[in-house]
Amino acid sequence: MNEPSSAFEAARRDGKRLMRLARTGALATLDDGKPLTTLVGVASDWDGSPLFLMSDLARHTKLLALDARVSLLLTSEGGRGDPLNQPRVTLNGVVRRREGRDGRVRYVQRNPKAKLYVDFADFSLRRLDVESVHFNGGFGRADLLTPADLLTPGDASALEAAEPELLDRVAALGDATLAKLAGQDGGRRVWRPVGLDAEGLDLQAGSEVARVDFDAPAFDPSAWQTALERLTG
Amino acid sequence: MNEPSSAFEAARRDGKRLMRLARTGALATLDDGKPLTTLVGVASDWDGSPLFLMSDLARHTKLLALDARVSLLLTSEGGRGDPLNQPRVTLNGVVRRREGRDGRVRYVQRNPKAKLYVDFADFSLRRLDVESVHFNGGFGRADLLTPADLLTPGDASALEAAEPELLDRVAALGDATLAKLAGQDGGRRVWRPVGLDAEGLDLQAGSEVARVDFDAPAFDPSAWQTALERLTG
Repeated sequence: MNEPSSAFEAARRDGKRLMRLARTGALATLDDGKPLTTLVGVASDWDGSPLFLMSDLARHTKLLALDARVSLLLTSEGGRGDPLNQPRVTLNGVVRRREGRDGRVRYVQRNPKAKLYVDFADFSLRRLDVESVHFNGGFGRADLLTPADLLTPGDASALEAAEPELLDRVAALGDATLAKLAGQDGGRRVWRPVGLDAEGLDLQAGSEVARVDFDAPAFDPSAWQTALERLTG
Repeated sequence: MNEPSSAFEAARRDGKRLMRLARTGALATLDDGKPLTTLVGVASDWDGSPLFLMSDLARHTKLLALDARVSLLLTSEGGRGDPLNQPRVTLNGVVRRREGRDGRVRYVQRNPKAKLYVDFADFSLRRLDVESVHFNGGFGRADLLTPADLLTPGDASALEAAEPELLDRVAALGDATLAKLAGQDGGRRVWRPVGLDAEGLDLQAGSEVARVDFDAPAFDPSAWQTALERLTG
């Protein structure tokens, strides 16, 4: 077996970050055999799969009822320089309903404006079950990635139960530590934790986003806290 | 006949601006009957139709050779607030080759980084012939627009011939006038003209874009200049 190349590892890290940090995506559905691309809000499920909060009244939702096959493009927000030289990832698969309360909590943490409509009767949470991946890291970087390279399967029920407390603890680290975790120490932005998973932590400051990556997944809440403490040392 | 409502006119203006100012879009092609969404660079043709500079090596280009039906999503760049409350437009239709040198000139004016590869043998210019439109102006603003509402047909050959000189004249107006045209007087950005058409002028300052709209189309170069002078006077 070959060692994974550093180019592969960079592609994998970029793809995972896009999946964790994106707040919108371009979703193509099928409309009588033709594609239709619309803008949708996204969050990430525990394993990294995209989550959507969709209104039954939206055109893409009506189309999904007829054919659930989609393609979702996630791009870097606010990147500098040529946008065609920024990493982006396309996730192809099937959209299904996502039951359970915690998905909505994750979605609203990531997209606080959705608080206004998350409990409306016509809104429901959906999940993209990823079947194939098309990754483009910028010019000359079109690595082959599979769903298994980008997803983090595992039992997240303990993390799910502990998430509110863990996020409170992260917030209590204070502005300076959070800015350092975001890789922005010295900046004036106030960062806040908006979600966590076995592989790390998502931070936001206004329209800016940042990701804290662990070396290895931590599905146990106390292991998660230890992993974070290692980074805040 | 009813007067066009102000909501309709606002939707039309937003749709046209997106088509003139977008530098990237999310393009859905068909891959064996399934959608595939990828990021593409865009510019606008004289009538407003999207232009692409595509490599034969790109996956979407290969798919277009098999089925030319696409859906292109254009979103506002760098908008503030909830991105789902910003205007966006989806243009559906068929992608065809665009012959003639001027299309490449327009594309590179808008996307200067493309200078590096515009003349590579595997790159060619394509145009989206828009057959239907899906407009979403933000919450509660999903107006019905047709291609005719968004396109500006007319003989642009005189404008095309005069464009280099007209752009030089616009640039010669100076930083303060250009900033005012961009609606950014008092700002510190240096704006430059990157394209024109019968309905106005496109300006860029780094990653920022701005549009100058005329009251009525001007296909004659001297009428174009008069229309601009009316705004700078």
